[in-house]
Amino acid sequence: MPAPFGLKEVREAYMRISGCVHRTPVLKSQNLDSLAGRQLYFKAENLQKTGSFKARGACNAVLLEKEKRPNSPGVVTHSSGNHGQAVAYAARCAGLPCSVVVPKGTPQVKCDAIRDYGAELVFCEASPASRNETCAEISSKTGRAVIHPFDNFDVMAGQGTIALELLEEVPDLDAVLVPISGGGMTSGIAVATKGMQPNCKVYPVEPYGKLLQRCLQSKQRMWPNPPQFIDTIADAIRTQQVGNLTFPILCEYAEPKVFTITDDQMIEGMKLGFERMKMVVEAASGAAIYAAVKSIEEVDAAPEKVGVILCGGNVDLDHLPWFSRKTSY
Amino acid sequence: MPAPFGLKEVREAYMRISGCVHRTPVLKSQNLDSLAGRQLYFKAENLQKTGSFKARGACNAVLLEKEKRPNSPGVVTHSSGNHGQAVAYAARCAGLPCSVVVPKGTPQVKCDAIRDYGAELVFCEASPASRNETCAEISSKTGRAVIHPFDNFDVMAGQGTIALELLEEVPDLDAVLVPISGGGMTSGIAVATKGMQPNCKVYPVEPYGKLLQRCLQSKQRMWPNPPQFIDTIADAIRTQQVGNLTFPILCEYAEPKVFTITDDQMIEGMKLGFERMKMVVEAASGAAIYAAVKSIEEVDAAPEKVGVILCGGNVDLDHLPWFSRKTSY
Repeated sequence: MPAPFGLKEVREAYMRISGCVHRTPVLKSQNLDSLAGRQLYFKAENLQKTGSFKARGACNAVLLEKEKRPNSPGVVTHSSGNHGQAVAYAARCAGLPCSVVVPKGTPQVKCDAIRDYGAELVFCEASPASRNETCAEISSKTGRAVIHPFDNFDVMAGQGTIALELLEEVPDLDAVLVPISGGGMTSGIAVATKGMQPNCKVYPVEPYGKLLQRCLQSKQRMWPNPPQFIDTIADAIRTQQVGNLTFPILCEYAEPKVFTITDDQMIEGMKLGFERMKMVVEAASGAAIYAAVKSIEEVDAAPEKVGVILCGGNVDLDHLPWFSRKTSY
Repeated sequence: MPAPFGLKEVREAYMRISGCVHRTPVLKSQNLDSLAGRQLYFKAENLQKTGSFKARGACNAVLLEKEKRPNSPGVVTHSSGNHGQAVAYAARCAGLPCSVVVPKGTPQVKCDAIRDYGAELVFCEASPASRNETCAEISSKTGRAVIHPFDNFDVMAGQGTIALELLEEVPDLDAVLVPISGGGMTSGIAVATKGMQPNCKVYPVEPYGKLLQRCLQSKQRMWPNPPQFIDTIADAIRTQQVGNLTFPILCEYAEPKVFTITDDQMIEGMKLGFERMKMVVEAASGAAIYAAVKSIEEVDAAPEKVGVILCGGNVDLDHLPWFSRKTSY
C-alpha cells in the first residue's frame, strides 16, 4: 500500500513550518553511548517550540488550512496537553483564531499555557465522548477546521520532518526509536525514513499495556473496545489504540517489533536524561532512552547507530514521577 | 595592576584543553528574553564534561603540569564536588595519577563519580584544616602537584575560555553574569572579557550572606575570620571568602556591583531553567538566571545583551531543593 503522503509532502512540510519551529539539535552523550554499547543520536524535541514535537504537525496542518482557505474562520481541537498547546501556538503563527476544548478540572498551569498563545479555552466533561462532541459542535457552528492530534495526514507529514532533520545529520543510522501513542509521529517518521534511507528501521516504543506488537504482526486491530487509556505515568502517550489512519501506515513502514517499557523503566530512562544529558525530558522520552540503553539487544543483530526521539520535555516539576511514586530509584 | 595572566594565557589554555572539553553551546530562550525584557545568551556549562565548568580550569592546570614535568608523579586536590570530579577527569585525560581528598561521610554517588575517572580517593576529617593537611601531606610524600580549585592562575585561565567562546559567538555583549564562589571563574572570565571587549561588564552573582560587594567597593577583605561557609542550598558556591589571588583580579576587572540572590530566588531561577529551557541546572546556575531575569534592573542603564553563565548541572535528583524545603514555589 503506498502511503497517502510521502517524502515529498514531508519536504514540503519542512519548508512550510521552518519559520515557526526550531531545527532541534541532535545530541550525543559519550556516557550513554558507553552504557548502551552503541552510538546513540538523540533528537531533542524537548527543545522544540511549546516543549514537544507536536508543534511540527500542528504548524503544518494549521498553515495548510490557511493556504487552502485564506479566509478560514480558524481551527479547533481537543487536548489539554502537548497537542493543545501546539495547535494554539500554530494558530498564533498562522494568524488564525483557535479554540481548544479541555476537560473540566484541567490544571491551571495547562490552561494558562494554552491561553498564553491566544487561544480560546472551552471546557467540557471529562469523557472522550464529550470532548469529541464539543469539538465537533464548535466546528459545525463556526466552520473552524478540526485539527486531529494524529489521524490527519498533514499532521503526520509535519512530524515526519523530525526524521528529515535527523537523517540529514546522520545519514547512516541503522534504526530510530520512537515513543508511540496515536501513531502520528511514528507514521511520519517511518514514511520519511523509508523514503530517505530504506535500510533504516523504525521501532515503536510503547508503554506497558498498549499491546501494539501483536496488532502490527497480525496487521489487525486486536485492541479491546471501547478505546481505553493506559495506566501509565507517561501522560503524553496514554492512548491505547493507534489511529485508523495511522495503523495501516505503521503496518507497512514500521517494524513489527515493539519495545514495551514499564513505568519504573521509564523513570530510569528519564533520570538518565536528566543526570547524564542534563536534559529535562518527559516520561515518554524516558521510555525511548530506556529502550536505547537497556532493551535494544532484544533485537537480533542489534543496530549500531540508533536515533532516539526525545519527544518532549513538559514535566510537572512539583510532581516528578520518582517523587510521586512509592518505590525509590 | 596588570593581571598575572591575560588574554594570551586564556587563548593558550583554549588550545591546550580543546581536545578534552566541549565547546558548549550558547542557548537562547525567547520565553526568558521576554520575561527579562532583554536579550539573554546562556553559556551552557551544565553540558560541559563532568557536568560543570570546572573541567576547563582543571584540564588546563593538569595538562600544564604534564607539559612542565613530563615525569610528574601526578596531581592531588581536595573536593568532594565539581572540582574533585574535574581534576580526576583532567588527570585521566593527561594520563597522570590523581588523588582526591574528600571528607568522611561524602555521599557514595559523589565518591563513585570521582573513582569512575580512575582517581584514588583519600578520606579525611570533615574540617577545612584536615582537608588541607591531608592534601599537603600527600603532596609532600608523593611529589604530586596540588591543584587548588580557584587560587591558581592556570585554573583561572582555563575558566576564562568560557568568555572566549561566548564573546566569539556574541561579540557585542554588554554584560556577563557569573555565579561566584572562590572567584576563579569570575577572574578568568573578567580578564578574558576585558581583553576582548573592554566595554563589556562582568558582574558577580553571589548567594545571600557572601558580602562581596562592600569588599569589592572598598578593595578590602572585610570578611570575618576564620573563613566560613555560607548557609545556602547552592552547594557549589558555599565558600564565603574569595581567594587571595582572585580578590585583586576581581577588584580590578569585575564590576563593584554584585547581585545578591536568596535561596528562594535561586530556586525560582533554577525552575525557570528546567521549565523554560528544559535544561537541568544546579542552584548556582539558577542564581544567574534569576539575576538576569529579575534583578538586572538594579543597575542604572541596564545592559541590553547579557551573557548568563549556567555554570553546572550537577543536581541530586532525589533532593531537588523545591522538594527538600518547606515553602512551596
